Amino acid sequence: MSFYDALKWTEDGLIPAIIQEASTGKVLMMAWMNRDSLESTIQTGRTHFWSRSRKKFWMKGEESGHTQEVKDVAFDCDGDVLLIQVEQKGAACHEGFKSCFYRSVADDGNSRVTEPRLLKPDEIYKKK
Amino acid sequence: MSFYDALKWTEDGLIPAIIQEASTGKVLMMAWMNRDSLESTIQTGRTHFWSRSRKKFWMKGEESGHTQEVKDVAFDCDGDVLLIQVEQKGAACHEGFKSCFYRSVADDGNSRVTEPRLLKPDEIYKKK
Repeated sequence: MSFYDALKWTEDGLIPAIIQEASTGKVLMMAWMNRDSLESTIQTGRTHFWSRSRKKFWMKGEESGHTQEVKDVAFDCDGDVLLIQVEQKGAACHEGFKSCFYRSVADDGNSRVTEPRLLKPDEIYKKK
Repeated sequence: MSFYDALKWTEDGLIPAIIQEASTGKVLMMAWMNRDSLESTIQTGRTHFWSRSRKKFWMKGEESGHTQEVKDVAFDCDGDVLLIQVEQKGAACHEGFKSCFYRSVADDGNSRVTEPRLLKPDEIYKKK
């Protein structure tokens, strides 16, 4: 049985994909895939997604060069979430942090930044 | 500024929460929270969710005893995904595995189990 048969997609044909850095265990981002982007991810070994806001198929790093090399594709017990292990080139976050989860809730209920910023956003999108 | 102001909820008032084991980096599960469940999670230090299928507020472990002690609550650059660090009692997955992501895509396109099963499902829900 193909693993695709175990997957459940939203009404819009999407599935959320958690992206984790294989070497460190750091969770880098979550984004959505449709069937085409999952197939491209597996076939090319580079993560591809579906942008819900831009309604567009995209490859991670296509503009920034910050691609993700796929090491493993797992899926959960309900078949409705993917967990993908990658090696990340540069910063996963468009804000210039390694991970998109660079802020945590502080004791006072505000947020605090928990990672160093690797790059400024305008440095990321200059260097195609 | 409260960190709640940085969060974006779906039309249904939900946000996906990735649950990661703080001590190992293992991603255990993803589930959905509404504002009530996030507030309860922060106030009690135990994860609470919203079940979309049962349309019900629930605490992780309320039936199984497999609770999650919250260590950190992070959120992503877009404010529409949470990443919560926990210490997990027992198995996070209702199938008896430590993580819900116990299957990966194999080279032949089928799936393979990547973790030992800790418990049988009927062992989990017996011991309240």
